[in-house]
Amino acid sequence: MIIQLEKDITDIQRATLEAKLQSISYKTTEVNTQFADYIVGVGKKEFDIREIGTMPGIHDIHRVSDAYKLVSQKWKVEDTQVDLGDGISIGTGEFAIMAGPCSIESEAQIESTIDHLVKNNVRIMRGGVYKPRSSPYSFRGLGIDGLKLWYEKARTAGIKIITEVMMTEQIDAMFDYVDIFQVGARNSQNFNLLDALGKVDKPVMLKRGISGTIDELLQSAEYIFSNGNERVMLCERGIRTYENSYRNCMDLNAIAMLKEKTHLPVIADPSHGIGVRRFVERIALASIMAGADGVIFEVHECPEKAFSDGQQTLDYGQSGALFNKLRKTFEFRKSIRS
Amino acid sequence: MIIQLEKDITDIQRATLEAKLQSISYKTTEVNTQFADYIVGVGKKEFDIREIGTMPGIHDIHRVSDAYKLVSQKWKVEDTQVDLGDGISIGTGEFAIMAGPCSIESEAQIESTIDHLVKNNVRIMRGGVYKPRSSPYSFRGLGIDGLKLWYEKARTAGIKIITEVMMTEQIDAMFDYVDIFQVGARNSQNFNLLDALGKVDKPVMLKRGISGTIDELLQSAEYIFSNGNERVMLCERGIRTYENSYRNCMDLNAIAMLKEKTHLPVIADPSHGIGVRRFVERIALASIMAGADGVIFEVHECPEKAFSDGQQTLDYGQSGALFNKLRKTFEFRKSIRS
Amino acid sequence: MIIQLEKDITDIQRATLEAKLQSISYKTTEVNTQFADYIVGVGKKEFDIREIGTMPGIHDIHRVSDAYKLVSQKWKVEDTQVDLGDGISIGTGEFAIMAGPCSIESEAQIESTIDHLVKNNVRIMRGGVYKPRSSPYSFRGLGIDGLKLWYEKARTAGIKIITEVMMTEQIDAMFDYVDIFQVGARNSQNFNLLDALGKVDKPVMLKRGISGTIDELLQSAEYIFSNGNERVMLCERGIRTYENSYRNCMDLNAIAMLKEKTHLPVIADPSHGIGVRRFVERIALASIMAGADGVIFEVHECPEKAFSDGQQTLDYGQSGALFNKLRKTFEFRKSIRS
Amino acid sequence: MIIQLEKDITDIQRATLEAKLQSISYKTTEVNTQFADYIVGVGKKEFDIREIGTMPGIHDIHRVSDAYKLVSQKWKVEDTQVDLGDGISIGTGEFAIMAGPCSIESEAQIESTIDHLVKNNVRIMRGGVYKPRSSPYSFRGLGIDGLKLWYEKARTAGIKIITEVMMTEQIDAMFDYVDIFQVGARNSQNFNLLDALGKVDKPVMLKRGISGTIDELLQSAEYIFSNGNERVMLCERGIRTYENSYRNCMDLNAIAMLKEKTHLPVIADPSHGIGVRRFVERIALASIMAGADGVIFEVHECPEKAFSDGQQTLDYGQSGALFNKLRKTFEFRKSIRS
Repeated sequence: MIIQLEKDITDIQRATLEAKLQSISYKTTEVNTQFADYIVGVGKKEFDIREIGTMPGIHDIHRVSDAYKLVSQKWKVEDTQVDLGDGISIGTGEFAIMAGPCSIESEAQIESTIDHLVKNNVRIMRGGVYKPRSSPYSFRGLGIDGLKLWYEKARTAGIKIITEVMMTEQIDAMFDYVDIFQVGARNSQNFNLLDALGKVDKPVMLKRGISGTIDELLQSAEYIFSNGNERVMLCERGIRTYENSYRNCMDLNAIAMLKEKTHLPVIADPSHGIGVRRFVERIALASIMAGADGVIFEVHECPEKAFSDGQQTLDYGQSGALFNKLRKTFEFRKSIRS
Repeated sequence: MIIQLEKDITDIQRATLEAKLQSISYKTTEVNTQFADYIVGVGKKEFDIREIGTMPGIHDIHRVSDAYKLVSQKWKVEDTQVDLGDGISIGTGEFAIMAGPCSIESEAQIESTIDHLVKNNVRIMRGGVYKPRSSPYSFRGLGIDGLKLWYEKARTAGIKIITEVMMTEQIDAMFDYVDIFQVGARNSQNFNLLDALGKVDKPVMLKRGISGTIDELLQSAEYIFSNGNERVMLCERGIRTYENSYRNCMDLNAIAMLKEKTHLPVIADPSHGIGVRRFVERIALASIMAGADGVIFEVHECPEKAFSDGQQTLDYGQSGALFNKLRKTFEFRKSIRS
Repeated sequence: MIIQLEKDITDIQRATLEAKLQSISYKTTEVNTQFADYIVGVGKKEFDIREIGTMPGIHDIHRVSDAYKLVSQKWKVEDTQVDLGDGISIGTGEFAIMAGPCSIESEAQIESTIDHLVKNNVRIMRGGVYKPRSSPYSFRGLGIDGLKLWYEKARTAGIKIITEVMMTEQIDAMFDYVDIFQVGARNSQNFNLLDALGKVDKPVMLKRGISGTIDELLQSAEYIFSNGNERVMLCERGIRTYENSYRNCMDLNAIAMLKEKTHLPVIADPSHGIGVRRFVERIALASIMAGADGVIFEVHECPEKAFSDGQQTLDYGQSGALFNKLRKTFEFRKSIRS
Repeated sequence: MIIQLEKDITDIQRATLEAKLQSISYKTTEVNTQFADYIVGVGKKEFDIREIGTMPGIHDIHRVSDAYKLVSQKWKVEDTQVDLGDGISIGTGEFAIMAGPCSIESEAQIESTIDHLVKNNVRIMRGGVYKPRSSPYSFRGLGIDGLKLWYEKARTAGIKIITEVMMTEQIDAMFDYVDIFQVGARNSQNFNLLDALGKVDKPVMLKRGISGTIDELLQSAEYIFSNGNERVMLCERGIRTYENSYRNCMDLNAIAMLKEKTHLPVIADPSHGIGVRRFVERIALASIMAGADGVIFEVHECPEKAFSDGQQTLDYGQSGALFNKLRKTFEFRKSIRS
């Protein structure tokens, strides 16, 4: 059960509400986000929700039977729009495109990528400065200095930055230089990190775990929301199956289902999703038909020389063609739904 | 290595070829299909293929490093078209649509379905008369009598029939009443059945196993082709993963990859693929963007009363809308590829 | 619901029973095995089973809520023993050991293997004469002639034969030369084959599908039993997972669970289960502690020269040591349970 | 390549070594643990390792082709023993048993559990004070105060503590009250946490990820070791598969393989591994035969009332019997290996 409180609810009204909820033995959690105040109640007793809905100080009340609550479409039917400022937003209207290298490597690479994006009218650039790597002996990213360098160039060009944060301690230092915090697949259930990202007012894109269920992904999103941050997006990036002719199995079923279960935007990552360059386009376009609100993919001036993920990274020619087809496919989808 | 022989190859030319192949220690299999004669050679020795290619009686020769040979695109670059007669073919040009109930249930149901298809200009009807069921106590289909009844009605209406064959012994009895033999997921590696279907001249649609790899699917198709039948189609129908919010995980990655690995048509089965009615449309449309040559799905006048698979079956309203969107999406795909 | 009938039930008693079952709307299947006659009833209506249990001509009646019925431990609490004759039985008392090559290759190989088994007092030999192979170009076994040759040698030595049957048409020809029909993983849901094996009076060992669920395995066993053959054994042989450092993932959890869900004997196949020779012993011994009633494994005089599966096959030295440890571990298990 | 340095290596000897390694283009990482100093070199050039092995200041040198290095058995053949002090060590000799509740709940619960362990001569107690939970609305543990309370009681009783650490910031506060830091499955690739645990001198037990590969687990262990902490243990706790009749699929294949790939102790967690109480014993005993060096399992005075994981938790009667059988089985394993 989710109760949204009026902004001007009085202490007495609040006390009355609490007494009511105690009387029906609901365990409550108070959630205060950048946009509103809520009470999330978990309990089993049947009651007439109108009794609460009509109390003074209450904005509205909804039943939510899912394990996740605030991210459920049972509570909020209309899609959430995540505003990045400067006229860029994700989740409605225009299709969101995010592209860039796996790793930020050098000033020249940053400039070249930004130039490619600007030419193609793409406004959000991806890139890693903290890289989760299976081996401790692999390149782990340029860190905060790389981010600051990137930020300078991006800001000048009107480009927004999405980049991965790996631990709570990095959040403060990164905050001013990031437009979207990305939580990687390996941290999809790093609950302390999710708690911490719920306490900042900055969009977060949460990736599904390497073998995370749809329910687990939504409950992880609930961690962020319930700590106070409503600006959350989800990302499908491929799961592990027995098949090993591709790196991962991009799960478009999950995109179709997530669009029904939650009001949050859903982004497709075909680069990691299938992990083989020459199939990225097909999977990207298919993701749109499955319902995705945006696509994030890897592009590099010279994929063969990329520090990481070269095998799944497009070059500028492929990327330019894909930008164009993504937009056309999104328009096509809108045309046949109406 | 695949050598296509000239139709008029002489015995002497053939003997010369065999001697040559023995000299380089290649194990050979002779394949005679409804269309041509081939020698498939498996060996490791390096040699100049032009030595064989220029021999008299040889049409052409190709190296194929895959485990599968005749179904590989390394041998045959252009897509295969499967001709069903009466102007209906699969694999090029128009998008193939096959629809119908999970099980053939009654004369009235057959008539109602055919009427629905005819109205929508759909020419291929699916339906099961032999049903593989996990439990021996479930409905197992109307059998050959159901098929004959169905055939009469379908023939009159100009509708082609695709239906599952479960065992070698059924092939002869079914032959006259079937336009496409379907091999179900559970029989995807029933090699004796595949052998037998290779010996008839009738199109076969082979479904991927419930956890079959892409390579296994192609090797199973090789069984059919190498026994003499070139008219083979593949079908992706969802695989097993850890996720259980859907029945199966429709693997669109496989569709994209199959279209590169093989020249055979690839059909998508979104009904089994995701197994939940209200997501069938999205997955069907996404399949087209992933590269599918056709879609097969389940439709029933009243899905709630279907003998089997009701939860993933569309009603006529949903089906009619989907036919329309499938065709538009296929046209759209063609428009952006060119 | 399972009703066991008395052997001397009269027609009138039977008619009374049927009327009763119809009155409560139960769908019934009559099952006549080599040992007894049963009525399996499927329905939802609540009723007092004593009403039926006390009717004349009724031996007993049990409720079984599982999807499978006759193979369920809810119906039959005591373990089933499968008698092979000549003092050899599986399922109680002594631990069952079956060993031999993947494929029967030659007379010399048969003799050598039998000699190895006899020396080690092992009474059941495995070996394939019909081999399911992913590729049509691989060795597919010596067929019925190989089986007859093997049978002659085995009979003389007092050795029982377990070998795979791949299709219904092979059953008759193989019948006289086989002691246990094996159904391979790929045919685990080949329902026509299961039907046919239910109609012969010969033990059957049914392998779990490559990604078969425990429930599916039990329902497949139900096919055999409900067609008339109670002499069924199950075999765990490894499942498909995302992990590829081993060939399959031997699922000892399934062995532990099967021993609770069914009264049928459960055999472990560590050779296919993990698929790597030097781990076969550990997995075999672990299987016993998980509850297995027997072990089947691959042994060859010279594994490197085996026609198939060499990488998971033991040599005679390893095999001899394993026989000994299997028996000791089984005795140990008995000692700590008591 | 791993080079162990002599403790008294001089600056000049070190410079000579570095020059040599640069000359063959090896990328090096210096590793200083509580026990020794190493250079880990990654490169491809062939060279005679004796050239380096015989240099002054070098203790020894080994080639390691695995992606992981210091945790590989290719470098260190003899098993690692992790010493907890007070005569308790893991990895050789006596079988390690760790038991306790899923969550630390109360003073009374702590006392009751310790009493149960002391009576059974078990010296290591498990319990969670920081609980990773899928839902933010679930009980998340008593935190540091719970740990301090537990520590007091445990110390008095001579019991060692193993408990999960979820984030870097918790390490310092927990350090004095913990004998083994546990890294949970969800944090198996939380590389920053692994880095930080490599910098403290306290044993760490690292659980395999929910769908972690064996190689990923070993590379995660390499993070800890290469940051300076050699006292690492691995834990198999079940993986995700398509089968859902159990919570997880305890992967005994992994235990058998890990014992060959690494010198680190391997602990089995049958409680999470299969996740169903009545199968914990069988899986625990099977784990020993697969090669485990120890078992960790969940026990609670009253599993039905446990705050978490009750369905997989043993009561004291079951636990007492299991302690006994674990020890007997370990002795039996030793007896048949020798």
